[in-house]
Amino acid sequence: MINQFFKDMLKGRSVIRELAEYATERGKEIGYENVFDYSLGNPSVPVPEAYNEEIIRLHREESSMFLHGYSPSPGNPLAREAVAKSLSKRFGVPYEMKHIFMASGAAGAIAHAVRAVTKPGDEVITFAPFFPEYGPYINHTGAVLKVVPANTADFQINFEKFEELLNENVQAVLINTPNNPSGVVYSEETLKSLAEILEKKQKEYGHDIFLISDEPCREIVFDGKVSPYPSAFYDNSLSCYSFSKSLSLPGERIGYVAVNPAATDADILVTMMTQISRGIGHNCPSSSVQLAVMKCLELTADMSVYEKNMNLLYDKLTELGFTVVRPGGTFYIFPKALEEDAGAFCMKAKEYDLILVPADNFGAPGYFRMAYCIDTEKVERSLPVLERFVKECYKNA
Amino acid sequence: MINQFFKDMLKGRSVIRELAEYATERGKEIGYENVFDYSLGNPSVPVPEAYNEEIIRLHREESSMFLHGYSPSPGNPLAREAVAKSLSKRFGVPYEMKHIFMASGAAGAIAHAVRAVTKPGDEVITFAPFFPEYGPYINHTGAVLKVVPANTADFQINFEKFEELLNENVQAVLINTPNNPSGVVYSEETLKSLAEILEKKQKEYGHDIFLISDEPCREIVFDGKVSPYPSAFYDNSLSCYSFSKSLSLPGERIGYVAVNPAATDADILVTMMTQISRGIGHNCPSSSVQLAVMKCLELTADMSVYEKNMNLLYDKLTELGFTVVRPGGTFYIFPKALEEDAGAFCMKAKEYDLILVPADNFGAPGYFRMAYCIDTEKVERSLPVLERFVKECYKNA
Repeated sequence: MINQFFKDMLKGRSVIRELAEYATERGKEIGYENVFDYSLGNPSVPVPEAYNEEIIRLHREESSMFLHGYSPSPGNPLAREAVAKSLSKRFGVPYEMKHIFMASGAAGAIAHAVRAVTKPGDEVITFAPFFPEYGPYINHTGAVLKVVPANTADFQINFEKFEELLNENVQAVLINTPNNPSGVVYSEETLKSLAEILEKKQKEYGHDIFLISDEPCREIVFDGKVSPYPSAFYDNSLSCYSFSKSLSLPGERIGYVAVNPAATDADILVTMMTQISRGIGHNCPSSSVQLAVMKCLELTADMSVYEKNMNLLYDKLTELGFTVVRPGGTFYIFPKALEEDAGAFCMKAKEYDLILVPADNFGAPGYFRMAYCIDTEKVERSLPVLERFVKECYKNA
Repeated sequence: MINQFFKDMLKGRSVIRELAEYATERGKEIGYENVFDYSLGNPSVPVPEAYNEEIIRLHREESSMFLHGYSPSPGNPLAREAVAKSLSKRFGVPYEMKHIFMASGAAGAIAHAVRAVTKPGDEVITFAPFFPEYGPYINHTGAVLKVVPANTADFQINFEKFEELLNENVQAVLINTPNNPSGVVYSEETLKSLAEILEKKQKEYGHDIFLISDEPCREIVFDGKVSPYPSAFYDNSLSCYSFSKSLSLPGERIGYVAVNPAATDADILVTMMTQISRGIGHNCPSSSVQLAVMKCLELTADMSVYEKNMNLLYDKLTELGFTVVRPGGTFYIFPKALEEDAGAFCMKAKEYDLILVPADNFGAPGYFRMAYCIDTEKVERSLPVLERFVKECYKNA
């Protein structure tokens, strides 16, 4: 018989997806180049040529069994070894192959990480603003997602509210840095304070609390900086990564979980994830994509366009009087709307063919998200439109 | 905190995998060419050259966004459309794009199909002998797997025992044809009888009973025959397919669910599966693999080697006095062991470097499986060894 739970889910559609579909439809009327579509986080710059060259070489030269045969459940050992080495070198955490689980993007990584360290009924805490998919990611495991309200001053962590929400049932904490939707990079200070609280609470409650760190934008950081690596601050860390953004490969579904070698049960967590795979039908990312990506671990697509776009938007938004924290990375910016109801604000913007996403289901009502992974030329053309929209609709702004 | 359920699963290892690992280790001692490894169902013939050529063309010619951008949740529309057309033409079931959900192999397909038509606590019936992974596939959804004992006469369905097991809690029935491990192809008569019983019970219980049909070996059929298509016999059918076997692509994790257009809620089942994906972290197979496979829908790898191997083994097993049903397809054969304890039988065979899999956890104690997706030359060399093993250990056989 049809599962009523999933059938009922069809009623609640994603706001982001609805806006993206509207933008596509509107594009058919007036030309998509005239729709300032800031709805979707789909990387706009091409994959590094080295990736395509490696895929071509593999399909030319390697045997069918090597390239297309079953990959062992935790992933191809060559790819796991390469990821472990690269991460150890870059972040000083001494990973070995046994700590790396190859996954189908960050979504697949989180699906395994959460199930490995929680059981149904447990609480998982995350921090607003947060990627709305964390709801189904967590709740479908049977665990319960609890949200710490946003620290709107700088979108670092609201530690006071965090401590209020902590209790013995909390078995994991889920963070996302650099953050979607705020664009903010968690500082070393934030990560240190977070680690201190978690260490203290682990002792107090007498059980592990795992930090699940979602890092698909780890390589998109501005002003020549590097994003502090959460796992370097806290032993019980599971880092969830995707190559979707850094290599512009979202469709290939490739990423990993890296288990901190000092975590409790670090030696068996990856093997546990292979057991989790059996029930959720995962069974590894594409074998050829694993082999190609391992040759590109320290490459990125040319992401300078995102920094350029951010600066253009940040300057204009500030000039127009918006309250907005300057993003340290990602391709998102997260200003406060010019009226309390961000939904109404975004509806008005739509009349100007500005597609902005209201942030109510990011856990930060009154804000909106702009995903600026689009051509700079288009961002430039959108600025006078943004100005006209603000002047016409919010004269006193 | 670590999930104890998945931690405990580490104690129960897969017999198949243990034997495969033993074969690899033994190969290091005596040369792998001297280990007659019939343990694993890893296709041994190369992918059709057309597949590799298409991958190379795509990576040469197509834009990064087209090739590597996010695929919509139910899969790339081009691939879905192509699968629908090909299936309609081949099997006379009028699929449209909306009935096709692209999945990460058959495991991914089943993960979505089962969740779409059952809820935790429901019963799902399957038939021995069965692929042991059906246990975790079903039980991790919260539904409960019930097994109809084998009809050892011909490994078609034991309908008497099936009717005994049917009750109001049964919401789905899971079949696998051509069958792993028996190699048997369900006949039209079997599928008709199955459909009749299900139709009758749907009326009696007043609810749908879905048929989930797992068909990764659909294209490996012997004697020039075609495997009868279960969905053509019963409306409430979800066909789960993988290209792992037909195109020798197990590592690429590519397959689909095809929802029979006459099934209850056929128009929304695929959209429901996209909701299921959100919770289990699935999000489509690789975008480039979807695009390449759609150009190879009516190709197969050269699978004549499997038929040749089957005939060699069947003839020798019969000659040696084994009770064995002649496989109609797949690359598995499923003889009765020469003593009651198939585990003990396979342990003795191991002394001859014959790696056979005892079938207790396939739900058919006393039998063993041979996966003959290996070089014919090796099969030929194994025959005298098999004969020596039988003569030395089972003189009265």
